[in-house]
Amino acid sequence: MISMRTDLAIEAFETAVEEQLLQEPTIKEEIKVSEDKVDHFTVSKVVVPKSAEQQLGKKEGHYWTLEVPQLRTQNEKWQQSISQALEKVIREFLPLSNISSEAHILVVGLGNWQITPDSLGPLVCENVFITNHLFHNEPEAVEEGFRKVSAIAPGVMGLTGMETSDIIHGIVEKVKPEAVIVIDALAARAVERIHATIQISSTGIQPGAGVGNKRKEISLETLGVPVVSIGIPTVVDAVTITQDTLNYYLKTLGQKKRTQDNPSNSLSVGALPGTKKLTEKDLPTQEERKVYLGMMGELEDHEKRQLLEEVLSPLGHNLIVTPKDTDLFMEQAANIIAMAINSALHESLADGHGTSVTH
Amino acid sequence: MISMRTDLAIEAFETAVEEQLLQEPTIKEEIKVSEDKVDHFTVSKVVVPKSAEQQLGKKEGHYWTLEVPQLRTQNEKWQQSISQALEKVIREFLPLSNISSEAHILVVGLGNWQITPDSLGPLVCENVFITNHLFHNEPEAVEEGFRKVSAIAPGVMGLTGMETSDIIHGIVEKVKPEAVIVIDALAARAVERIHATIQISSTGIQPGAGVGNKRKEISLETLGVPVVSIGIPTVVDAVTITQDTLNYYLKTLGQKKRTQDNPSNSLSVGALPGTKKLTEKDLPTQEERKVYLGMMGELEDHEKRQLLEEVLSPLGHNLIVTPKDTDLFMEQAANIIAMAINSALHESLADGHGTSVTH
Amino acid sequence: MISMRTDLAIEAFETAVEEQLLQEPTIKEEIKVSEDKVDHFTVSKVVVPKSAEQQLGKKEGHYWTLEVPQLRTQNEKWQQSISQALEKVIREFLPLSNISSEAHILVVGLGNWQITPDSLGPLVCENVFITNHLFHNEPEAVEEGFRKVSAIAPGVMGLTGMETSDIIHGIVEKVKPEAVIVIDALAARAVERIHATIQISSTGIQPGAGVGNKRKEISLETLGVPVVSIGIPTVVDAVTITQDTLNYYLKTLGQKKRTQDNPSNSLSVGALPGTKKLTEKDLPTQEERKVYLGMMGELEDHEKRQLLEEVLSPLGHNLIVTPKDTDLFMEQAANIIAMAINSALHESLADGHGTSVTH
Amino acid sequence: MISMRTDLAIEAFETAVEEQLLQEPTIKEEIKVSEDKVDHFTVSKVVVPKSAEQQLGKKEGHYWTLEVPQLRTQNEKWQQSISQALEKVIREFLPLSNISSEAHILVVGLGNWQITPDSLGPLVCENVFITNHLFHNEPEAVEEGFRKVSAIAPGVMGLTGMETSDIIHGIVEKVKPEAVIVIDALAARAVERIHATIQISSTGIQPGAGVGNKRKEISLETLGVPVVSIGIPTVVDAVTITQDTLNYYLKTLGQKKRTQDNPSNSLSVGALPGTKKLTEKDLPTQEERKVYLGMMGELEDHEKRQLLEEVLSPLGHNLIVTPKDTDLFMEQAANIIAMAINSALHESLADGHGTSVTH
Repeated sequence: MISMRTDLAIEAFETAVEEQLLQEPTIKEEIKVSEDKVDHFTVSKVVVPKSAEQQLGKKEGHYWTLEVPQLRTQNEKWQQSISQALEKVIREFLPLSNISSEAHILVVGLGNWQITPDSLGPLVCENVFITNHLFHNEPEAVEEGFRKVSAIAPGVMGLTGMETSDIIHGIVEKVKPEAVIVIDALAARAVERIHATIQISSTGIQPGAGVGNKRKEISLETLGVPVVSIGIPTVVDAVTITQDTLNYYLKTLGQKKRTQDNPSNSLSVGALPGTKKLTEKDLPTQEERKVYLGMMGELEDHEKRQLLEEVLSPLGHNLIVTPKDTDLFMEQAANIIAMAINSALHESLADGHGTSVTH
Repeated sequence: MISMRTDLAIEAFETAVEEQLLQEPTIKEEIKVSEDKVDHFTVSKVVVPKSAEQQLGKKEGHYWTLEVPQLRTQNEKWQQSISQALEKVIREFLPLSNISSEAHILVVGLGNWQITPDSLGPLVCENVFITNHLFHNEPEAVEEGFRKVSAIAPGVMGLTGMETSDIIHGIVEKVKPEAVIVIDALAARAVERIHATIQISSTGIQPGAGVGNKRKEISLETLGVPVVSIGIPTVVDAVTITQDTLNYYLKTLGQKKRTQDNPSNSLSVGALPGTKKLTEKDLPTQEERKVYLGMMGELEDHEKRQLLEEVLSPLGHNLIVTPKDTDLFMEQAANIIAMAINSALHESLADGHGTSVTH
Repeated sequence: MISMRTDLAIEAFETAVEEQLLQEPTIKEEIKVSEDKVDHFTVSKVVVPKSAEQQLGKKEGHYWTLEVPQLRTQNEKWQQSISQALEKVIREFLPLSNISSEAHILVVGLGNWQITPDSLGPLVCENVFITNHLFHNEPEAVEEGFRKVSAIAPGVMGLTGMETSDIIHGIVEKVKPEAVIVIDALAARAVERIHATIQISSTGIQPGAGVGNKRKEISLETLGVPVVSIGIPTVVDAVTITQDTLNYYLKTLGQKKRTQDNPSNSLSVGALPGTKKLTEKDLPTQEERKVYLGMMGELEDHEKRQLLEEVLSPLGHNLIVTPKDTDLFMEQAANIIAMAINSALHESLADGHGTSVTH
Repeated sequence: MISMRTDLAIEAFETAVEEQLLQEPTIKEEIKVSEDKVDHFTVSKVVVPKSAEQQLGKKEGHYWTLEVPQLRTQNEKWQQSISQALEKVIREFLPLSNISSEAHILVVGLGNWQITPDSLGPLVCENVFITNHLFHNEPEAVEEGFRKVSAIAPGVMGLTGMETSDIIHGIVEKVKPEAVIVIDALAARAVERIHATIQISSTGIQPGAGVGNKRKEISLETLGVPVVSIGIPTVVDAVTITQDTLNYYLKTLGQKKRTQDNPSNSLSVGALPGTKKLTEKDLPTQEERKVYLGMMGELEDHEKRQLLEEVLSPLGHNLIVTPKDTDLFMEQAANIIAMAINSALHESLADGHGTSVTH
């Protein structure tokens, strides 16, 4: 069982491997992990089989991760590139969930529009190109190359007093879309994934950690139609920041040792003029880690995380934080996703023409 | 048949009387019209019987109008008085719709949050005190004197691609509230009603003019639970403004004639230094009206309206407008309604304590 | 003296001509009025000489009006066309005010961001491409083809407690830009000009009607540097709406008479099935106007306006209104102006590339 | 010299003591530090003399810190208590800066309204009760017990292209207020100070670290009138979070050791079931710290900070973050400060009546 929550399957997988949970060789083999290139960007593709659900704490299905560190820049060219790559990823992904190119798709924007780092879903909904009502009310106005798209941002339970899954379920039963795309802001367990990866999965949303609590799921099982979810990590907790910082510290010392070959065993300020690049290879030996970071240095990553949680949580100090410039980022990220959805769903807007319909 | 649309029953009734549609004495008697005082404010109460539905173009039910011209001021004391009066009106009205004091109530905020004069519903929802989820998830946290309240602002068809009634219907079937309160911004047919009256009715919302199109209704008939609607007029059209202005003109001339007794039959600029108060009595005779305003002056109000629509509509010039300070007003009006709803629904917040829970 | 206020010079000129104020032939000749085409759009150019200031109630200088009825559409192609036409107009206009192509320009966004129809200036400022600080702090980062641009939206007196002209004046003295471009929302005296014309003038802003009150002006005289102002009409008053409607009414009757040649002298509802196009030629004769509209019909436009103001103002009923969809329009109009300014001021962004720098 | 930046004088003082910078006993004695109670809250008062400026990196003047951890709650009663305490603090502080009870005060809201955690200043300005224009334009409307107050939120250099100090300077020279109150969001160097302390100082704003760069200061020296600044910490960096977390870790281990007396020298996950309260006494000995945290454990706090900066800064990983719920907090904090300012500046609104004038 994975103890700490991550919304990203790739992180769950990495942790599980590290924790050696996947010891049965058959299971580990059944989890298919591959890497692909879409334009300039890497896509990691994980297929979780039924048999690995429990150990991974992730539901059976497809989990793709598009690595887009350039999402953090305010560069317009990169924004377009990312959006077009995401368009291709969505186009390729939909058939895996058995969503036909004609299906009426309901886009659901989860999250709270009053909390900026949680407003990704509602912001995307504002820029999705809506057509479903035209098919019913002005069919003659609908040109070739468009399909039925509808959208809703239901809000969160604190705002509505209702389970979000109940709201979505009720609407789906009445309006009968043939598929649902859910957009949500995610939590990450690595600072460098914040605002830098886009996850797309076939398993819908499971509120709370792990598998279970079917009732509140937004998924094929509960809604009766395929559910694809798209998310971007926008928050991390203090534990994650600390763990990442300590790893940078260890690797920096490790790199120094190898390059200078005179690792002082005591630190003085100014001893570390810094480095620009660190890799896994820079991680010092177990013994060195003990010198640099004591008992803490001897722990595996997942143990470090658990220990720090045990320290911070009772004190109420495991703060969930978001980068200071969250406002600028959210608007930009929502725009990229909305453009990609518009272009992926409507043939007429393919190849990055999804902007031309947003105002 | 009433040709032009008004969202206010009191206006429909006035027009119907003027048009002498209610000629059958029995029907006219069956429509009960009374006037009441709540604190400083007047409430007009109209009961439309089944038999008068067609002639009035308004569904059978209760229609109350609270006259609150002080709503336009930015005076905080008046805001509180209006909110407390509305609280009393809501308390008195709910039993008429067979809504018990324990019923779980879903507040539905209709309208488009991107269009300020249409954002009354969504704004109210943001300030309604939501409790329903606590009853389910933390029942021990719920104190005496609260009932289940939930809320949603579903957006408009242009934003969602779905019929709003379908969205509400789906949610009601799933979540099963025992009553619905719908909030909406209205159109008025008199400038002086803009931002100055609050209508509460038992018949829900009938999109489009008149009775019919059951499918899109948000009402007891479609939802299966009582529906109370609360609205404030926020827009008028150019025809209304013109008609009102011409009536002020006629009455000003009429008043001058009576007070000065030397009505010049030709106007020169500066001849009308203006007046502060006009009443129905100031309206000049039919003959004088012809002198002052030609053929236009001979028409009844509803004929004037119809004529002006025939002029403006084909030109696309019957502009729908809202006062320049709509932003300030909408926030204020939404706050008043939300406070009144909070106080009326939760016994613990009665007598104007509905503010203390909003942030 | 012009009695009623308009922010548009073209309207002031039309009224003055109608009122026959410009009776001295020399003065009338000195006012140069010409018409030009920029791409698809008409530009009216008025040059007011010193000698005509008093009679026109408009300060000496250049007043251009770009006619862009397509501004009301939500069509993206039209938005770009308008922006590019405005870019050309600004480029042509700046030298008339002796603003060099190198001058540091301060963009001032007047108006109240809390009142949507008054928020044009602040919204434009948010999308203007700002460079001045780079010239000072990172001169090496500034590429060829850019000039110094700075911007501020000072708010209105109700928000700041200070005269807006004092704020601007203080900043100009300290920061020393070489020219100022002021953006402001305007009032119009014709409904069809709302959201449909862009005025650019060389005379700055004169708060209150007419000429005078130098102290509060934002102009070359007070700031010591050239001031160009750009504005769009966003509001009208009830008098304007009524006057326009009555003129449409008269013209519709006039047109019917000419086409049908059987003008009934009494109106019945349904008699006017409407028309799509009206021109000045449709205006009926003075005598017919009396039949159709009594004493009111005999008045000239400016007399009608004055009379209606005399009726409405004492009653407090001359409501200032804005179209219902003001939110959508303001965002769109601000974006068009900002793009045009960006492209006109920075050579590198010429020909409509002013977007590529806004986020 | 203090190497790392903090906006809070109390933090600078603590660090300086720790670094033993204040070794000259005379200087240390000259820095007066006292503690006071205002209602339920503690106020730390530091007076920095001229002689200690260099060593503290803080300008000569008064620095008070109001400790208000309840600011983080959404409890309305606490909000009022905090606002009333702050009112008293401001009233007591103004005379220290030689600001009379009649002085015209300009409130300056620094920061960027597009970045939520940086929007404190602009948000406060929106709720400050503005009167200055009334004294000039409607003196008869000004009641007893009010003074002249004006306000402006000038934006940041990236939005305006101008030095903010130049904008303020220009306005002050023109409008001539007799004192300035500057509101700004701050950075803290302890997570527990975020959203939990209010600093008020007499020295204005010194952009960038330390003393110097007079030109950009907003202070008595540059503006010629007294400047009081009020700020709340809203952001921290990754280094701060890590340092705090490591200290909690050390203290938790220290506490365990003392209570259990069997400190295992190796950690196993689950060994630290956590604690609710930690104090300075829980910090383990130097030797134990080496065991628990290796070389890192041996460092003093300011050395730890410097080391971690040396690791993170070259990598671009010293992320500035804000709590996830920054939107809710900023609105609440701005409201509290505005109410306190209103009540402190206007005698008529004293004792918490500063709300009654905000809409």
